[in-house]
Amino acid sequence: MSRYDRAITIFSPDGHLFQVEYALEAVRRGSTAVGVRGKDCVILAVERKTAAKLQDSRTVRKILEVDEHVALAFAGLTADARVLVNKARVEAQSYRLQFEDSVSIDYLTRYIAQVQQRYTQSGGVRPFGISTLIAGFDDDGTPQLYQTDPSGTFSAWKSNTCGRNSKTVREFLEKHFVDDMNERDSVKLAVKSLLEVVESGSKNVEIALVKLKEPLRYLTDAEVEEYVSEIEKEKKEEEEAQKKNKGDNKQE
Amino acid sequence: MSRYDRAITIFSPDGHLFQVEYALEAVRRGSTAVGVRGKDCVILAVERKTAAKLQDSRTVRKILEVDEHVALAFAGLTADARVLVNKARVEAQSYRLQFEDSVSIDYLTRYIAQVQQRYTQSGGVRPFGISTLIAGFDDDGTPQLYQTDPSGTFSAWKSNTCGRNSKTVREFLEKHFVDDMNERDSVKLAVKSLLEVVESGSKNVEIALVKLKEPLRYLTDAEVEEYVSEIEKEKKEEEEAQKKNKGDNKQE
Amino acid sequence: MSRYDRAITIFSPDGHLFQVEYALEAVRRGSTAVGVRGKDCVILAVERKTAAKLQDSRTVRKILEVDEHVALAFAGLTADARVLVNKARVEAQSYRLQFEDSVSIDYLTRYIAQVQQRYTQSGGVRPFGISTLIAGFDDDGTPQLYQTDPSGTFSAWKSNTCGRNSKTVREFLEKHFVDDMNERDSVKLAVKSLLEVVESGSKNVEIALVKLKEPLRYLTDAEVEEYVSEIEKEKKEEEEAQKKNKGDNKQE
Amino acid sequence: MSRYDRAITIFSPDGHLFQVEYALEAVRRGSTAVGVRGKDCVILAVERKTAAKLQDSRTVRKILEVDEHVALAFAGLTADARVLVNKARVEAQSYRLQFEDSVSIDYLTRYIAQVQQRYTQSGGVRPFGISTLIAGFDDDGTPQLYQTDPSGTFSAWKSNTCGRNSKTVREFLEKHFVDDMNERDSVKLAVKSLLEVVESGSKNVEIALVKLKEPLRYLTDAEVEEYVSEIEKEKKEEEEAQKKNKGDNKQE
Amino acid sequence: MSRYDRAITIFSPDGHLFQVEYALEAVRRGSTAVGVRGKDCVILAVERKTAAKLQDSRTVRKILEVDEHVALAFAGLTADARVLVNKARVEAQSYRLQFEDSVSIDYLTRYIAQVQQRYTQSGGVRPFGISTLIAGFDDDGTPQLYQTDPSGTFSAWKSNTCGRNSKTVREFLEKHFVDDMNERDSVKLAVKSLLEVVESGSKNVEIALVKLKEPLRYLTDAEVEEYVSEIEKEKKEEEEAQKKNKGDNKQE
Amino acid sequence: MSRYDRAITIFSPDGHLFQVEYALEAVRRGSTAVGVRGKDCVILAVERKTAAKLQDSRTVRKILEVDEHVALAFAGLTADARVLVNKARVEAQSYRLQFEDSVSIDYLTRYIAQVQQRYTQSGGVRPFGISTLIAGFDDDGTPQLYQTDPSGTFSAWKSNTCGRNSKTVREFLEKHFVDDMNERDSVKLAVKSLLEVVESGSKNVEIALVKLKEPLRYLTDAEVEEYVSEIEKEKKEEEEAQKKNKGDNKQE
Amino acid sequence: MSRYDRAITIFSPDGHLFQVEYALEAVRRGSTAVGVRGKDCVILAVERKTAAKLQDSRTVRKILEVDEHVALAFAGLTADARVLVNKARVEAQSYRLQFEDSVSIDYLTRYIAQVQQRYTQSGGVRPFGISTLIAGFDDDGTPQLYQTDPSGTFSAWKSNTCGRNSKTVREFLEKHFVDDMNERDSVKLAVKSLLEVVESGSKNVEIALVKLKEPLRYLTDAEVEEYVSEIEKEKKEEEEAQKKNKGDNKQE
Repeated sequence: MSRYDRAITIFSPDGHLFQVEYALEAVRRGSTAVGVRGKDCVILAVERKTAAKLQDSRTVRKILEVDEHVALAFAGLTADARVLVNKARVEAQSYRLQFEDSVSIDYLTRYIAQVQQRYTQSGGVRPFGISTLIAGFDDDGTPQLYQTDPSGTFSAWKSNTCGRNSKTVREFLEKHFVDDMNERDSVKLAVKSLLEVVESGSKNVEIALVKLKEPLRYLTDAEVEEYVSEIEKEKKEEEEAQKKNKGDNKQE
Repeated sequence: MSRYDRAITIFSPDGHLFQVEYALEAVRRGSTAVGVRGKDCVILAVERKTAAKLQDSRTVRKILEVDEHVALAFAGLTADARVLVNKARVEAQSYRLQFEDSVSIDYLTRYIAQVQQRYTQSGGVRPFGISTLIAGFDDDGTPQLYQTDPSGTFSAWKSNTCGRNSKTVREFLEKHFVDDMNERDSVKLAVKSLLEVVESGSKNVEIALVKLKEPLRYLTDAEVEEYVSEIEKEKKEEEEAQKKNKGDNKQE
Repeated sequence: MSRYDRAITIFSPDGHLFQVEYALEAVRRGSTAVGVRGKDCVILAVERKTAAKLQDSRTVRKILEVDEHVALAFAGLTADARVLVNKARVEAQSYRLQFEDSVSIDYLTRYIAQVQQRYTQSGGVRPFGISTLIAGFDDDGTPQLYQTDPSGTFSAWKSNTCGRNSKTVREFLEKHFVDDMNERDSVKLAVKSLLEVVESGSKNVEIALVKLKEPLRYLTDAEVEEYVSEIEKEKKEEEEAQKKNKGDNKQE
Repeated sequence: MSRYDRAITIFSPDGHLFQVEYALEAVRRGSTAVGVRGKDCVILAVERKTAAKLQDSRTVRKILEVDEHVALAFAGLTADARVLVNKARVEAQSYRLQFEDSVSIDYLTRYIAQVQQRYTQSGGVRPFGISTLIAGFDDDGTPQLYQTDPSGTFSAWKSNTCGRNSKTVREFLEKHFVDDMNERDSVKLAVKSLLEVVESGSKNVEIALVKLKEPLRYLTDAEVEEYVSEIEKEKKEEEEAQKKNKGDNKQE
Repeated sequence: MSRYDRAITIFSPDGHLFQVEYALEAVRRGSTAVGVRGKDCVILAVERKTAAKLQDSRTVRKILEVDEHVALAFAGLTADARVLVNKARVEAQSYRLQFEDSVSIDYLTRYIAQVQQRYTQSGGVRPFGISTLIAGFDDDGTPQLYQTDPSGTFSAWKSNTCGRNSKTVREFLEKHFVDDMNERDSVKLAVKSLLEVVESGSKNVEIALVKLKEPLRYLTDAEVEEYVSEIEKEKKEEEEAQKKNKGDNKQE
Repeated sequence: MSRYDRAITIFSPDGHLFQVEYALEAVRRGSTAVGVRGKDCVILAVERKTAAKLQDSRTVRKILEVDEHVALAFAGLTADARVLVNKARVEAQSYRLQFEDSVSIDYLTRYIAQVQQRYTQSGGVRPFGISTLIAGFDDDGTPQLYQTDPSGTFSAWKSNTCGRNSKTVREFLEKHFVDDMNERDSVKLAVKSLLEVVESGSKNVEIALVKLKEPLRYLTDAEVEEYVSEIEKEKKEEEEAQKKNKGDNKQE
Repeated sequence: MSRYDRAITIFSPDGHLFQVEYALEAVRRGSTAVGVRGKDCVILAVERKTAAKLQDSRTVRKILEVDEHVALAFAGLTADARVLVNKARVEAQSYRLQFEDSVSIDYLTRYIAQVQQRYTQSGGVRPFGISTLIAGFDDDGTPQLYQTDPSGTFSAWKSNTCGRNSKTVREFLEKHFVDDMNERDSVKLAVKSLLEVVESGSKNVEIALVKLKEPLRYLTDAEVEEYVSEIEKEKKEEEEAQKKNKGDNKQE
């Protein structure tokens, strides 16, 4: 099989594009990203690598602003993400200039996905080694959450995840997602789902809040810490409740 | 043989283009798509992958609008399909601008097939990994259904299919297709043929209705469910009739 | 030898261009095409693959109109043929615009052959996998029949064939061709020669008639059937005559 | 050695360009061509492949007109020859437009040779698989005969040959060529030399006559036949004379 | 694994880009560079290769001015660094021309990182074999220190290092860095951290001082020597204190 | 070592460019060329391949005119030489147009050498397989003789040689060259040196005479023959003198 | 390791660019070049290959004028050097036109080094196989001596060397170089250092003198001879002094 994996311009005999699948592997090795669509907000949350002590964490963000009303989280190669976001920013701005209107989230997603696809069909390049979660609001105030992957495929989601352990996180989201959550519950779900796979708590979680007609806001460490404490407290209570339940059950 | 399958610019000694055949393999592994030409409608139906629970199914559609009067279903690589449809949309619009008339289904099919062929003859690219079913109405009100494949070959059909298990589905269609069916019968045939190879019923079927001078309409889940129930009911009745027949026969 | 067959830019030590020969192999595996030049008509006839039951046979034609007065039949890769015919159409139309006259059959053939040659000399492409038969009338009313092959070689013929079993068909044509046949005899010769190698009769034969100052006309299935019946009847009579003859001979 | 024969851009350790030599091999396998420069004419003669019975022999000519006063015969790949001749025609015409004078034979030969050389030095192409004999008259009425080969080398000749068996034919020409022959003797020498290596007589010989201020003229089959008969008659007489001589000698 | 390391356009099956990692290896083999962000200064310090005796050390500097207010230190291939700095200089100047303002450190870093990323995604080139430390002041007087690496990733730091032994140096910096140090302490920390891995003292250390609205200043050898002496003196005192401590401890 | 000889863009580990050395091998296998700079003339002489009997020797010259006052002899691939000379001619003419002056021999040599160098550094081409001797007069009447080789190196000479057996010829020239020879002695030295390695006398020697403000003149066969006879006569006399000497010596 | 040395676009796993190192090997095999910066002069000296007897040594110079006030000596491939010098000349002249001032030595060196770097990063070319020593005066009268190598690295020197045996020569220079030497001493040092590795005296040494506002001057053979004699005389005296010393020492 390995003979067919040296270039994006070669299909394997059973119709695979191995280079695209290898790029997906780079995504799978990246930090976990989560998106949650609430009633009037979209939450993006990503695992933060234990930041180097002297590093300015604001510059290693894996949640980036694309336009006033759109943010993007990613899993995979950081440098690739920045370049792709740059292209998206330019497109968003040139759209604004041409149509005197902000770009829709759907339009922007298609643009990003199409750039990613192009890097899987013509020789002399490699695919982008990232999956993205794109969050924003359309003009009519609808919150939107999209996902794209290295092949250039995209789709909209109520809530989704990519990167390391995304399977575990997605199952958690499917179990706990509720439609039309308020901001607090949306953030809480995002943090909770990440804590399923990320250790050592608030230090390693980065949260961004996209709200209608408001600029992208990153939660402060204190705010994140608050959510984490609350979640851990609830967990403990729950466990104790269960223990007690068991105890009660035993007694009976 | 494998020495001749590394590039689209190499014929094998017996005149094969292996990379094109491998692209066809990607089509054969894709979800099944069906097209049925009725009296005054064309039906496109595709197998839906068990949608992820939180996914917005509208954005993973495998039936896409190309122009006001044309829709396209595909089997194969989703990202490739979106890029090809985009090219077709641009062509349709620029045709409209130039000739102040909508493009004919034949013209659009030729355009799509030619793009696909070009990606099989010049080095540095790979073929598009999709087959398409193109449905629409010509200006004179004739319903049209075309098919194209990765080699760039195309033809018109009364009813056809591509993707996984297309052989079984085509045989079913050949057995049950009737000329000039009304909308209800056309949809029913499309759904029935898909149910031959798709499990778990209405959840996994996506249906789109192309009618003269009407915008492309996707059937609601409820509508699809109704068709599926009816089909399953008829099937049961048929089986019981057969059983009874056998019983009757035994009795005699 | 196989070391020299990976690209059109490499001669083998004994002066072969293997990729061009492999493209010819793709032609040899294609359906048979026949051309017959009559007194005031040129007939093109091709083997039709057992058409899929629901397929619109008009769109899988292997005889294509190039310009008002020129038609082209081919053996080999269908998608390649359509692309080459498209180039020829554009050339014919731009000639008409520039010179206010229709292109001569010789000119058009040279153009097609030159395009084919170009794809055998520069890297990064593959040869066209088709041979063509080009039929038409020059301005002075002379009927013309040309042939081109993947190497870009061309020549004029009274009658010729390409594709599967072309050797058998050519021998038949050489034995039975008569100069200045009328339309009926020309068509009959074309059909007869195809029936030498094509089974199951009229269903599998496609006939097109090129006449001076008349648009290209495809024979209807009924017309073809009539020719086939007549031919089969004559054949039977001939055989009976032979049998009888033998019988007579035995008697003597 | 074979490691150095995959591309025209690679010298072998002993300074060979194998791809150019392989192209020469394609020439050596081509039909024989002969050129003879007479007093006021230049004769080009080529071996004709046993023409297919129904083929129009005028379109498979291996002697082609380049300009009003120049003709070219070739040995090797027919499609390559036509493309090269096309380039030469365009050059000759654009020269005429620019300088209001016809191109000299020397100029045209240099042009053709230079095109051939270019295809031996830059990657991504292959050499032209032909040698040419170029015949014509300069403005001052001097008859000219040049030869070029796949490497792009050229030179002028009184009489020369290329293609299959060229060694035998050249020896014959060297033995029998006489300066300032009239037209009849020139043609006769050309035919005779070809008959040394071509079987089955006039059918397989194509002759073209280039004369000052006259259009290129192909000899008719009858004319060729006449020459062939005469040559065969003379041969017979000669042989009988020799026999008789021997007999006489024996008697003595 | 080694099969996937021949080009930047190939992912390995587990999602690695080996050529980028090999470029990082060139960085790891380069001389150590250190950056320290003080209260109102940014210090860049690099290991100096034992300068050739007759070499003008000013021209082998590994700390280069990019714009009036920005300096860049690097580890890795010197020639690559100069070319990249040149591109950055041009960008900074063209920005100044276009916006009549000096470029922000963030903007310049993004530009440099993007150039580095581009050389990791398109074929026919290799990545830049350098990591950079970029130091400067934004318009509002904020001191900035950024780092980029061959993949095109970048981030801001209070203090960081790259090149040989960067792990040891970074640990030292993390242990001793204090926020808002004055110039003297900042330089001292930079020199001290370098002396952890660089032998033979002041001769092998190059220090540059970036201050708000002041031109980039290289410390003189005398100044560096002073710092080194002081550091060594302190070290000795410390060691003696420790010894004495131990002695005291023993006595007790 | 052979791994590094497939392209001009690859140095071998010990710093060789094998493809350039292989091109030099093509030169070493070419016919010998000699240049002699006299007082008021420059002589170019080349070995002539035993000309084919019917070939026009003027068109196989290996001494070519570049401009009115410059001639070029070469050893190596004839077609390459003609193309290079063509480039030089165009340069000389465009110089004349631009500066209204003839090009200096030094300028022209640099131009030719630079073209040759360019074909040794960029991929997709091969080096020119020729060495050249360039002879001419500068505006001030100084005779000039330069040499270039496939690497693009050039230098001026009083007398030099290239091609087959150049070592033997150069030793002969070094032994017998005298400054400021008149035309007769210059030609004689050139012929004599060639006769050291070329057999069968005048037939195989081509001589061209470059003189100030005179057009390039090729010596006639008769003139060459005269020189050859004289040289052979002198040789014989010399040998007899030597024999006699020996005889005399013996007698003593 | 050898797998990573076929192209300049490939890093080896330990971060090497082998093709650049191989180009350096070509430099190491070239003749030795020396540069010495005096008080008001810069001396360039190179080893001369035993000149062919009839060669015009002026045209094989390895010290070349770049601009009125700049000269360049090189070690490595002569043809490469000339092409690079040509580029530098054009740059110097276009600078003069644009800024109406002569280029600084630093600017020119950066330009040359950057050209060299560019040929180490993009595919399809090879690095320049030369190191250079660039000598000249800046506008303010400062003498300058720079060195560049195939990687594109450059630096300024009081005195330096490149090519064969450069290690020995550099050690000699480091031992004997004195700041602010006058012209005589500067030349003497350059010659002496070369004589450490070059045999057979003045014949094989080429010296050029760059002085402020004076044109580049090559020392005559006589001048060089004088220096060589003086040096050899001094050497002898020194040796005798040493011998005597030893004798004296023995006596004691």
